[in-house]
Amino acid sequence: MKPWESSRPDRLLFTPGPLTTSATVKNAMLHDVGSWHFDFAERVRWIRSQLLTIAEVSQADGWEAVLLQGSGTNGVEAVFSTCVPPGGKVCVVSNGAYGERMVHMLRSLQIPFTVLRSNENELADLALLDRLLSTDPTFTHVAAVHCETTTGILNPIAQIGGISHRHACLFVVDAMSSFGGLPIDFEADGIDFLISSPNKCLEGVPGFCFVLGRRETLLANESHARCLSLNLADQLRGFERNGQFRFTPPTHTLLAFEQALREFLLEGGVTARHRRYHANHVLLVEGMRQLGFQPYLPPALQSCIITAFHYPADARFQFPDFYRRLSEHGCIIYPGKLTHAETFRIGNIGHLFEADIRGLLKTVADVQREMGFAPDADRAPGKPLGALQSISLFL
Amino acid sequence: MKPWESSRPDRLLFTPGPLTTSATVKNAMLHDVGSWHFDFAERVRWIRSQLLTIAEVSQADGWEAVLLQGSGTNGVEAVFSTCVPPGGKVCVVSNGAYGERMVHMLRSLQIPFTVLRSNENELADLALLDRLLSTDPTFTHVAAVHCETTTGILNPIAQIGGISHRHACLFVVDAMSSFGGLPIDFEADGIDFLISSPNKCLEGVPGFCFVLGRRETLLANESHARCLSLNLADQLRGFERNGQFRFTPPTHTLLAFEQALREFLLEGGVTARHRRYHANHVLLVEGMRQLGFQPYLPPALQSCIITAFHYPADARFQFPDFYRRLSEHGCIIYPGKLTHAETFRIGNIGHLFEADIRGLLKTVADVQREMGFAPDADRAPGKPLGALQSISLFL
Repeated sequence: MKPWESSRPDRLLFTPGPLTTSATVKNAMLHDVGSWHFDFAERVRWIRSQLLTIAEVSQADGWEAVLLQGSGTNGVEAVFSTCVPPGGKVCVVSNGAYGERMVHMLRSLQIPFTVLRSNENELADLALLDRLLSTDPTFTHVAAVHCETTTGILNPIAQIGGISHRHACLFVVDAMSSFGGLPIDFEADGIDFLISSPNKCLEGVPGFCFVLGRRETLLANESHARCLSLNLADQLRGFERNGQFRFTPPTHTLLAFEQALREFLLEGGVTARHRRYHANHVLLVEGMRQLGFQPYLPPALQSCIITAFHYPADARFQFPDFYRRLSEHGCIIYPGKLTHAETFRIGNIGHLFEADIRGLLKTVADVQREMGFAPDADRAPGKPLGALQSISLFL
Repeated sequence: MKPWESSRPDRLLFTPGPLTTSATVKNAMLHDVGSWHFDFAERVRWIRSQLLTIAEVSQADGWEAVLLQGSGTNGVEAVFSTCVPPGGKVCVVSNGAYGERMVHMLRSLQIPFTVLRSNENELADLALLDRLLSTDPTFTHVAAVHCETTTGILNPIAQIGGISHRHACLFVVDAMSSFGGLPIDFEADGIDFLISSPNKCLEGVPGFCFVLGRRETLLANESHARCLSLNLADQLRGFERNGQFRFTPPTHTLLAFEQALREFLLEGGVTARHRRYHANHVLLVEGMRQLGFQPYLPPALQSCIITAFHYPADARFQFPDFYRRLSEHGCIIYPGKLTHAETFRIGNIGHLFEADIRGLLKTVADVQREMGFAPDADRAPGKPLGALQSISLFL
């Protein structure tokens, strides 16, 4: 049931998550199950194995999927706090809020790091990354965000991974908003740790996250883990010991995820989901352009997950009013998160289809008429803001 | 619908959690809501304020409720990692697995600590605690578990809190399995931080935890927080800034908790819930005794939350078989967690009523007949195991 079809259904979520999920995924949560029970352990085992299958890696090749309670941020911080040894150093490649969040984690954990920072609408200077890693052999890890949902920019993880490995660094990828929705080649991209969430392209509900990595690499610095809750090595050993989470898992969320994975496979896996999201995205951007909204990024850098749009120049456009009206019509969009441009964001992942995007576009047109703001003048989308490739050092 | 009433309903959970919850609590999860939306922020605000009301403390007196993603363990570790300053030292009062878990956290976080350890069926020697804190003025915090679900033993937090404050130590209470089900007097007990879970006596579903503490105390060591995900001060500032979680919250779990709190208030709050759990517990223990099962703890130490029972001596009793048969009849119980005695555990919290306990007892009797093991010979329940009051030092 969609907002434009009925009296009081849920609003649709055009956000980077939490997302709109299918009724069957939510219905899966209508059961209380014992976390110690063998049935539940079997379901957790199935979920872990499916994640490896989706990633096209295998236990035979040493890969493991570790589920961890909490938000996706817990997963990224768990990798740093468990897997960077004392004396290790991380190079963070950042062009948005989630790259900066890695910086905050490393600072809290007192792990030495350097940030290779570029504008939010630009990719990292890979030659500079290469030079940076050559000149400082103490780097042990490189970390980057795949799809930076600040803007929806898609970062070149294959190239970053290649450079990392050339300098004997492990490569940590925050693929929160891309895993399952975009093809990712673990081997070719040189991924050593990938962190993602059940509540993005896999269309489950939020409540835990997962890390894919090689068992050996996950366990390598076990004795140096800086935190118990975020100790991925101990968490993996827990699953290996008795199939269980070390600490109370979000059982209902896991049941929803089991169902979400079934629906993911039924739809046709990564290929089919990517196709649907891509179609959603093309329709969204084309429709928004026709209504006079300009995307922030140039198309070449834009993922099909989430899109940032400039605020229209017309003063009659006020984001809080725009947001509230869309919400009253059943559509939830998302504010911007940019430091130097006024944008809002529209996500097109989740249980959303062509009709939903068309419904949103019609709603935006209606709200635009109600508010009376003019279509935006054409501007070069994502015009670079002048050279900024900076390196910040810490410790 | 209960297991003995119908063909294939959910099994009932007689465990320390995840628990059986009401159908209405689970139904509350059938909605996808935007975590950035003002409606959701208002619901989070309501939840936070209700937790203070249940605790009988107020914002006017400086108290705050901080919700945190992840299991209850995350909450306990968040207190240590955010609120113990550099140079701080913690005295852990431990008589079970959850006290020992605090020790593991402190070791991971490299926070100096001492453990005052007693047998799992004995309370701490309070005179020894007093002496310990007198002789070492570097202690800054004392930490204890209220109801230690390893055994169901109820620790004397009022006395421990009094001693802590006499020595100018802050008092951290893990009240995971007791908050909402047992009366707790924050002022009289000298509680500075209390950690609990939505999925115990408040009968929500698992997926986050919460910490109650004074704002000033929560923020005092903000700049020294050892971890971003577990940074309670930053989490509190997030709620204060815009009513939101810093990182994606488990929205569905929070909707379930909102409903669980409504049902908690309707039932009559702590008093009514404590009455129901107490009645469940009395009925359970009396019934199990009649069937020949002996509780591990003496009644004076036993909480009304969860009860550990000795394995019957008869070799025809095998726990895995007993567990599986009960499960086939729709009842999930819990294994023991003791280091020096063979026990299993039965919880009586959650959406469980007299009829459910009677149903469980009838099922235990049936299984006992099927398996053919004899009632246990009378033994003095919870006979002390010989003096063990040890102190372990670290750093």
